[in-house]
Amino acid sequence: MDRHEVTKKIISVKVARKMRWADIAEKIGQSKEWTTAAMLGQMTLDAQQAAVARELFDLTDEETAWLQIVPYKGSLPTAVPTDPLIYRWYEIVNVYGATIKELIHEEFGDGIMSAIDFSMDIQRESDPKGDRVQVVLSGKFLPYKSY
Amino acid sequence: MDRHEVTKKIISVKVARKMRWADIAEKIGQSKEWTTAAMLGQMTLDAQQAAVARELFDLTDEETAWLQIVPYKGSLPTAVPTDPLIYRWYEIVNVYGATIKELIHEEFGDGIMSAIDFSMDIQRESDPKGDRVQVVLSGKFLPYKSY
Amino acid sequence: MDRHEVTKKIISVKVARKMRWADIAEKIGQSKEWTTAAMLGQMTLDAQQAAVARELFDLTDEETAWLQIVPYKGSLPTAVPTDPLIYRWYEIVNVYGATIKELIHEEFGDGIMSAIDFSMDIQRESDPKGDRVQVVLSGKFLPYKSY
Amino acid sequence: MDRHEVTKKIISVKVARKMRWADIAEKIGQSKEWTTAAMLGQMTLDAQQAAVARELFDLTDEETAWLQIVPYKGSLPTAVPTDPLIYRWYEIVNVYGATIKELIHEEFGDGIMSAIDFSMDIQRESDPKGDRVQVVLSGKFLPYKSY
Amino acid sequence: MDRHEVTKKIISVKVARKMRWADIAEKIGQSKEWTTAAMLGQMTLDAQQAAVARELFDLTDEETAWLQIVPYKGSLPTAVPTDPLIYRWYEIVNVYGATIKELIHEEFGDGIMSAIDFSMDIQRESDPKGDRVQVVLSGKFLPYKSY
Amino acid sequence: MDRHEVTKKIISVKVARKMRWADIAEKIGQSKEWTTAAMLGQMTLDAQQAAVARELFDLTDEETAWLQIVPYKGSLPTAVPTDPLIYRWYEIVNVYGATIKELIHEEFGDGIMSAIDFSMDIQRESDPKGDRVQVVLSGKFLPYKSY
Amino acid sequence: MDRHEVTKKIISVKVARKMRWADIAEKIGQSKEWTTAAMLGQMTLDAQQAAVARELFDLTDEETAWLQIVPYKGSLPTAVPTDPLIYRWYEIVNVYGATIKELIHEEFGDGIMSAIDFSMDIQRESDPKGDRVQVVLSGKFLPYKSY
Amino acid sequence: MDRHEVTKKIISVKVARKMRWADIAEKIGQSKEWTTAAMLGQMTLDAQQAAVARELFDLTDEETAWLQIVPYKGSLPTAVPTDPLIYRWYEIVNVYGATIKELIHEEFGDGIMSAIDFSMDIQRESDPKGDRVQVVLSGKFLPYKSY
Amino acid sequence: MDRHEVTKKIISVKVARKMRWADIAEKIGQSKEWTTAAMLGQMTLDAQQAAVARELFDLTDEETAWLQIVPYKGSLPTAVPTDPLIYRWYEIVNVYGATIKELIHEEFGDGIMSAIDFSMDIQRESDPKGDRVQVVLSGKFLPYKSY
Amino acid sequence: MDRHEVTKKIISVKVARKMRWADIAEKIGQSKEWTTAAMLGQMTLDAQQAAVARELFDLTDEETAWLQIVPYKGSLPTAVPTDPLIYRWYEIVNVYGATIKELIHEEFGDGIMSAIDFSMDIQRESDPKGDRVQVVLSGKFLPYKSY
Repeated sequence: MDRHEVTKKIISVKVARKMRWADIAEKIGQSKEWTTAAMLGQMTLDAQQAAVARELFDLTDEETAWLQIVPYKGSLPTAVPTDPLIYRWYEIVNVYGATIKELIHEEFGDGIMSAIDFSMDIQRESDPKGDRVQVVLSGKFLPYKSY
Repeated sequence: MDRHEVTKKIISVKVARKMRWADIAEKIGQSKEWTTAAMLGQMTLDAQQAAVARELFDLTDEETAWLQIVPYKGSLPTAVPTDPLIYRWYEIVNVYGATIKELIHEEFGDGIMSAIDFSMDIQRESDPKGDRVQVVLSGKFLPYKSY
Repeated sequence: MDRHEVTKKIISVKVARKMRWADIAEKIGQSKEWTTAAMLGQMTLDAQQAAVARELFDLTDEETAWLQIVPYKGSLPTAVPTDPLIYRWYEIVNVYGATIKELIHEEFGDGIMSAIDFSMDIQRESDPKGDRVQVVLSGKFLPYKSY
Repeated sequence: MDRHEVTKKIISVKVARKMRWADIAEKIGQSKEWTTAAMLGQMTLDAQQAAVARELFDLTDEETAWLQIVPYKGSLPTAVPTDPLIYRWYEIVNVYGATIKELIHEEFGDGIMSAIDFSMDIQRESDPKGDRVQVVLSGKFLPYKSY
Repeated sequence: MDRHEVTKKIISVKVARKMRWADIAEKIGQSKEWTTAAMLGQMTLDAQQAAVARELFDLTDEETAWLQIVPYKGSLPTAVPTDPLIYRWYEIVNVYGATIKELIHEEFGDGIMSAIDFSMDIQRESDPKGDRVQVVLSGKFLPYKSY
Repeated sequence: MDRHEVTKKIISVKVARKMRWADIAEKIGQSKEWTTAAMLGQMTLDAQQAAVARELFDLTDEETAWLQIVPYKGSLPTAVPTDPLIYRWYEIVNVYGATIKELIHEEFGDGIMSAIDFSMDIQRESDPKGDRVQVVLSGKFLPYKSY
Repeated sequence: MDRHEVTKKIISVKVARKMRWADIAEKIGQSKEWTTAAMLGQMTLDAQQAAVARELFDLTDEETAWLQIVPYKGSLPTAVPTDPLIYRWYEIVNVYGATIKELIHEEFGDGIMSAIDFSMDIQRESDPKGDRVQVVLSGKFLPYKSY
Repeated sequence: MDRHEVTKKIISVKVARKMRWADIAEKIGQSKEWTTAAMLGQMTLDAQQAAVARELFDLTDEETAWLQIVPYKGSLPTAVPTDPLIYRWYEIVNVYGATIKELIHEEFGDGIMSAIDFSMDIQRESDPKGDRVQVVLSGKFLPYKSY
Repeated sequence: MDRHEVTKKIISVKVARKMRWADIAEKIGQSKEWTTAAMLGQMTLDAQQAAVARELFDLTDEETAWLQIVPYKGSLPTAVPTDPLIYRWYEIVNVYGATIKELIHEEFGDGIMSAIDFSMDIQRESDPKGDRVQVVLSGKFLPYKSY
Repeated sequence: MDRHEVTKKIISVKVARKMRWADIAEKIGQSKEWTTAAMLGQMTLDAQQAAVARELFDLTDEETAWLQIVPYKGSLPTAVPTDPLIYRWYEIVNVYGATIKELIHEEFGDGIMSAIDFSMDIQRESDPKGDRVQVVLSGKFLPYKSY
């Protein structure tokens, strides 16, 4: 058994029972963004969170243990994603990557925006011309230092 | 001559004269995000914007004409970026890609978040534990339709 | 279970029973193009369409539920397709890609032809020198905006 | 000198003189689709067409000769295109590839739609919800034969 | 079930029963080249040919049906083949590709040699210095047309 | 200077002077297939052949010397060729590769068809349904031996 | 069943019974280099050799038949090997490749060292500073010919 | 200036003056294998060797200095070499890689054959059936140790 | 059975029983770094170490035998790792690779730092600004020699 | 002009003047590791450091300005490095990557070792059996947080 098989089971149960990520997140007690990532095998649960997941998805002892093991992360099957929704994000990195780099460096100097000390919030933004997806990303700035 | 050479000249002049993107954007009359992307060869300027760029960077007639031609977009030299700042964004897509997909579909149904009818805002977020980079992305939701 | 397994079952049943896509589409109540894409795991069915599919392919409850979940799209096993029919389409993109880009930009300005708000129609075109495949693609033009 | 350099010169002149593909095509005497592909280095001109191009772009003798040599075709810098407009076409092949294959085979049997005995027509389609790009592709069906 | 599994079964039976392609082809009533390609999952059989194959390889109803479905073609596991015999063919394309292109264009103008309206004949050529493999390829020339 | 630059010069002169490979071959005194490959930088000329080439293409001493140096072979810019004519050959290897392997092994046992002790002949084959390209490949069979 | 499964069984039996390649080779009656390659699925056995293998590894009739079928060769899972021992060989080709090419051409002219009419011998070379691996490769030189 | 440019100059001079690697090696005072690798930019020369090279190839002060700088090694333009002679070596690694691994481990245990403490000797081996290339590789065995 | 399956079983047991690598290493009698690599299928155990592993993970005879067979090494599923922790190491090689090369050559001359005669030690380094990971790598310097 | 050209000039001057990184670092006033990385175009200098570099390498005003611009990082020409010294580091990541991941997670929980808040120290370690390269890497541990 490995984490990947646990993820497959969780998704399979979710589809069969027509559950929603927002509801699952409420029970786990974290944001819907973190919870979904965790259920999809990208984050590590603590014992209490794993116990909730066990209830929700009828997990066994070993499956519950796997949720508390740090997973090998990466949720895409190919380096360039083929799914149109995910590709649009890759395209944003491709088209705006150099821009993001320039503007963060202009404001903060040399360093990066952390993808670890990081959070994400996805919301519907009402708009008469068609609703929009609004995503707020927040990552700590980590400066390169000389030594 | 092609757009790439115009981009190289613009960057070279900007470095030599120690200009800032925020100041350039103010003169172009657009956000600093759009303006930087445009100066880096990803967006198309209208005649008036191109005339400002001409002044700022001592461009020739033909260079100014190139700014008004739709460019072949893509600002990264490799499919998986090697620069740490840009890689972190690729990593976000890699680790959270499936999560973003699940949550947008849960809220909106099948479709995508547009990367064309799209805007981006990058700000410093003060934080006693270390300032953060806050990025707000806003893209129109485009539903798949059956036909 | 995942969508891929449902797709395999649908194709297997279709081959065993010698069904035709055009007939399946009529029962689903959509075009043959959309229906085939949906049955091949690229589109999301609503409850009514899924109920028809259930009848046609003897699907279980869970399989029927999977048809209503947004799939991870992408129908080709490799980045450059090896199948001659599909490769010809890739070749069209390769040989005519820059041409398509130039002509759409000349007519519409900077932007894209949507692959989401999109439809396709494939027809036989009689021709004394040998019949032709005629494909009509229609996608909404989405302009890039400055902000 | 090679064809690529001739292409670069043609584009450079076109940008500097703000010419339009539709006008160039009219002078060459072919459709705007074929003419643009030819000017972008994908098609072979006959002597008369090359003579017109010579006038339009101030070509030399050798440059004019190159236009009449069959070029090494392929207009994209990477196997998966990074430009959003061209990527949407690649995405159509990716998402609908298997569908196109199924429907052509259902109608015609085993074989391909030719990308050589092929024509393309790109038009604006007025639509109150936003104009659309309509593309008509027509390719001869070529059957596989047993022998 | 899919075509790939049918192919695996056919090869497995052929090895176990020590059959020869030439004999199989005679029974199918086509050339050994076409027949072998068909048995290896690259060509589509008609009902009569499939019935013969059914007898030869003890196929089931569904397996026999799969032989009459147009397959997803491509018989190599990697883009650059590792098997020495097949690699030599890839090497011929690599070393002589530009030569073949030049000579066909010199004789026929712009266009291609069809790989669909195509036949192949492989024979032993006796030679005192060591027998040779002689392969005759015949493909219809398809000219590019302007439109 | 390297062989690649000599090749570029030879092609450039050939285009400017509208020469034909068949005529060049006659002067070099070899087949048009071998001669074209040699002029395209894939084969090594002897002193006499190089002297003829020198005359034909106005080569310098050093350029003539380079023709007699064994080149780094390979005439395609990418592993999977983008040019339609050359791709069709790659497709033949892809679709028929396993077939070629099976039939040569059935006739000759384990070994390869040499791509070194090899010749090629390209001819026009008249056909009322459209002329065909006929290519005859002849390569010595080289058996694997146990030791 | 395919050759790959036979190879897996042979290796599994060898590990379970703690057999040595040198002993297996002696029983097969060939060098340890050829025998190991054959057992790893790279060479074709004759009937007698296959019969010995059958005894050694408890093979079935069909497994024994597979050993006499020419395999699809290639023993590495990736184009650039990850295993350190095998990578060192790839590194030798990478670092010394151009050198080997130059020296063989200097001695023999244009052509190759055959990898088919080829043998290999691996021995321990005693050395007070640490024993060495000595490998002798012998391949027939095959000259390119003009035609 | 970088080492690559020095290499290009050395090869260019060697071709123009029709020099032989064996003669160059004799003057450098090392084997022809090491010397060729060094001249092709893969090895580092000491001051005395560089002085000889300076004489032989009319190098400048800076060019001579570059020969004494450790180069970035790797002599092939692609991961899988396209040149037939070098490919044959890659093929040996591909077909025999697992065999070499097995036999070295059987004799020496876990570890590698060094590609650094390594030498190579290339000789002509006379053979009535056609001369052979004999290559002797000798590399120190380096054992993995537990710690 | 192969080593990979043994590795999967070991990890599965470790997760189910909530064991720690440090404890396993103590029982095996080697460092935690070497032991973990060995348990993950990268190192070869001797008979005694394998016997301990057998006890710890309830291995069978054949599984225990596999631990003593030199494995095909390489612990990452893709050439560029997607997991953020492992990617950071790849990034260090990417950003600092040329620096490491320069400094080792400046100190030692041409050669490498061995990855075979190599050890690694990973420790927590207390730091008031946040604890750090300290890794000490030690590899024998192996000089290139001329011959 | 871009940073890459400044890097090339710095290296070229360093080779021509036979300077040492250790001496350059002393003048810049930082460690030899950081300084070398900076000179190789991976780090950003402050005004004072750039002024020293200007003196050392005879830089112009614009070149000096470029040193103070954050560079696009990445010092390797290919995803898998071909240079043996750098490859050994890639091999360490490949063979020990999963081990490093396991041990850091065991000690610290889910998170990464920073490659930004990071330092490196490379030293010679005397050893009677042959001197060793000792490298100490120190990176802050950054924990993933739930939100």
